[in-house]
Amino acid sequence: MLPFNSLISSSQLSPDIIAKIFSLTDDMAAMIDKQGRSDLLDDKIVALLFFEPSSRTMLSFQSAAQRLKAGTVFAQSASSTSFEKGESIEDLIRVVEGYSDIIVMRHAQPGSAAIAAAACEIPFINAGDGGNEHPTQAIIDAYTIYKHKGRLDNLHVVLGYDSLQSRSIHSLSQLLAQYANNRLTFIGPAKLFPSDQLLAKLETAGVKCDVKEQAVFTDEVDVIYLNRLQEERFEDRQLFEENRLKYRLQRADVENSDILVLDPLPRIDEICTSVDSLPNAAYFKQTSYGVPVRMALLAGLLHKKP
Amino acid sequence: MLPFNSLISSSQLSPDIIAKIFSLTDDMAAMIDKQGRSDLLDDKIVALLFFEPSSRTMLSFQSAAQRLKAGTVFAQSASSTSFEKGESIEDLIRVVEGYSDIIVMRHAQPGSAAIAAAACEIPFINAGDGGNEHPTQAIIDAYTIYKHKGRLDNLHVVLGYDSLQSRSIHSLSQLLAQYANNRLTFIGPAKLFPSDQLLAKLETAGVKCDVKEQAVFTDEVDVIYLNRLQEERFEDRQLFEENRLKYRLQRADVENSDILVLDPLPRIDEICTSVDSLPNAAYFKQTSYGVPVRMALLAGLLHKKP
Amino acid sequence: MLPFNSLISSSQLSPDIIAKIFSLTDDMAAMIDKQGRSDLLDDKIVALLFFEPSSRTMLSFQSAAQRLKAGTVFAQSASSTSFEKGESIEDLIRVVEGYSDIIVMRHAQPGSAAIAAAACEIPFINAGDGGNEHPTQAIIDAYTIYKHKGRLDNLHVVLGYDSLQSRSIHSLSQLLAQYANNRLTFIGPAKLFPSDQLLAKLETAGVKCDVKEQAVFTDEVDVIYLNRLQEERFEDRQLFEENRLKYRLQRADVENSDILVLDPLPRIDEICTSVDSLPNAAYFKQTSYGVPVRMALLAGLLHKKP
Repeated sequence: MLPFNSLISSSQLSPDIIAKIFSLTDDMAAMIDKQGRSDLLDDKIVALLFFEPSSRTMLSFQSAAQRLKAGTVFAQSASSTSFEKGESIEDLIRVVEGYSDIIVMRHAQPGSAAIAAAACEIPFINAGDGGNEHPTQAIIDAYTIYKHKGRLDNLHVVLGYDSLQSRSIHSLSQLLAQYANNRLTFIGPAKLFPSDQLLAKLETAGVKCDVKEQAVFTDEVDVIYLNRLQEERFEDRQLFEENRLKYRLQRADVENSDILVLDPLPRIDEICTSVDSLPNAAYFKQTSYGVPVRMALLAGLLHKKP
Repeated sequence: MLPFNSLISSSQLSPDIIAKIFSLTDDMAAMIDKQGRSDLLDDKIVALLFFEPSSRTMLSFQSAAQRLKAGTVFAQSASSTSFEKGESIEDLIRVVEGYSDIIVMRHAQPGSAAIAAAACEIPFINAGDGGNEHPTQAIIDAYTIYKHKGRLDNLHVVLGYDSLQSRSIHSLSQLLAQYANNRLTFIGPAKLFPSDQLLAKLETAGVKCDVKEQAVFTDEVDVIYLNRLQEERFEDRQLFEENRLKYRLQRADVENSDILVLDPLPRIDEICTSVDSLPNAAYFKQTSYGVPVRMALLAGLLHKKP
Repeated sequence: MLPFNSLISSSQLSPDIIAKIFSLTDDMAAMIDKQGRSDLLDDKIVALLFFEPSSRTMLSFQSAAQRLKAGTVFAQSASSTSFEKGESIEDLIRVVEGYSDIIVMRHAQPGSAAIAAAACEIPFINAGDGGNEHPTQAIIDAYTIYKHKGRLDNLHVVLGYDSLQSRSIHSLSQLLAQYANNRLTFIGPAKLFPSDQLLAKLETAGVKCDVKEQAVFTDEVDVIYLNRLQEERFEDRQLFEENRLKYRLQRADVENSDILVLDPLPRIDEICTSVDSLPNAAYFKQTSYGVPVRMALLAGLLHKKP
């Protein structure tokens, strides 16, 4: 049902494919509400290979496989496995495809997903390859906007606070660039603005882009998408502390508004916990959509219709 | 079927609730004997979060979930997860409840279970929060006494050898204090006698308490509950070695008696292996009751009748 | 259906038993092809205890259990478990048998499998006990030869490059010694030739044995079974590098021949990747047979007929 055998990069996600995945995701969410689990992948084995720490993505893929009653085989953190004793990624994949019907892999090495998918004769999903790609997260983010705003076009989206190095901000902004009339404002410390390369790419695609050190949340804004500042990006701890306190979404910023507040999580300081109880704070809902989205991808790549 | 949504502390366990859990546990044990596994939780996902090493409790909860054909999602040893990079327990729980229908958590931090349960909108079970509480162990211990002695009142129970710091001795003694006419004798090195606070609490509840450095096992004793001495409690290795050899249950101590011998395990030196083959040695039976007890708790909190 | 309760050593594997296991394995492979998974062990719990790193064997046993819809309980790498805090293997096994219906264990300590099996009242499978035994690997290797050559007798098998210390070469050669008219040539550095003891044992059983520093692959050879050289076996890095480059199977060595090429994997340098695409390169097929072979063993020891 999906026109590819492997999901490696968010660049594979055209509006048509996104629409197909969203429709499948809706079916999966309805199934969970109605009956908890289904037999859809009852005859399949999902391999979950997590060669880099990741609780959220890992638990969410486990849940997706279990909600569809697939069997799972699971290996975590390569540091203790023979997969690190000089064995190639290609060999690893050819071994694991003998044990399963679809492979989900997270790996620290950028580009590892493409190498794996090329060697893989069964469907393959990239669950994050280092700082490179994390396409299932991009779909979850887009799905959350779609469910709460009803559209992926004609949106003003504010993204921060580290737009330079966030894999999820890169993917989401490029995904939104495929839809008409979107406007993106990147906020945060100037040193963490997106690269000129990304900005040029987005402008070429027709997106109006701004960068701002001071965040302003007016009624024109539809969505705020925030991630945490990382201490290791700053020269000294004091500079980090200053920025950490400066770049924090307060309840007053988004109270009594329709601005949808998102965060790929984990949340550290970027959003005050007092925001959590607002009806427009959707980050926990967002993480929960990870399950039906990943169910849709597993089922879609295995050509199983709900 | 249980009057609470979360099991956090053994102080929640009144005789009424204990009776309800035991009845469910009997049903579960009968089901295992008859058919191995049942479909009771076939439509549910159990999250097993083990953020502190624990093989016994972890395997036993896995088995309980699997015997009821629940799906499981599983994260182990937080040291490698983003859950440790500054994310709060509340956020962690709100994330995981999006992936599951009930959460079982072990966490090194005392009090973490109460914090988690307060944030949790789905049922929650404390599988041990540091040195604080381990309520499912208390139920297993009580269930074992009940199955072998037929009652939880009118018992003389000897507990040792470290009554000062053992979470399971604290819980079991307080649980027994809710039943009539129980007598407790704490044995072991004087420095590891229970705190005056615990003794006062038990006496107030009507329990006759004694402390003894020399263990005496007469016909008046109904149950012996032992755990291991821990080297780190002693100033020097020699003192530890002396006590280790002194406080060891021998076969002759309990042979030809009806004294039920229990141990929360792992067993190190506190019980000679020559005791294992006695009909009144019940510690391996005790650990195996962990499965039907935890099945009862999972089903009870999810309101599923067998 | 198997005449033992525990599989500990490849010395238990007579031609009769091998034939029985192969027949069951064929049934399992046919089931996977036809329906993916079966209900055969739907009422059972398989305990998977991996107290030593092992991705391949671990994933393959997980897959075997899941293909038969058994529940699984799983503990990995004892370094973080109470099983290492002085608890005996016997106690560990008596605990885990309360949680499961069959135990699969890998353990670093040679001889641990026999100790465990003696304490175990439910079926037990040795998934590798240090450098001692790994009987399920021996069955997989033999099954691969049988499927591709149609027999286990009248074979000329070349084994290398470390015949001295390879558990799998020891097991396979002794297994082949039970069949008529087999001839074995051990190749590799002289210092890694098999022990005189093994050679004497094989000759006594009627096997013609040779050792050679130079590999020759003529038409008389039916099977080549290679494993990697390990750097730690060599005095210095330079000597290792020389041997590493010298002992590498090249495409030209086995192209246009019927010589079956096997490797227990992981493959490091011992076989050039250019060999992979040859029709007689069977090492990835070999690892995939691990699933039906282990399904056959789980079902056979649990007396479940497909």
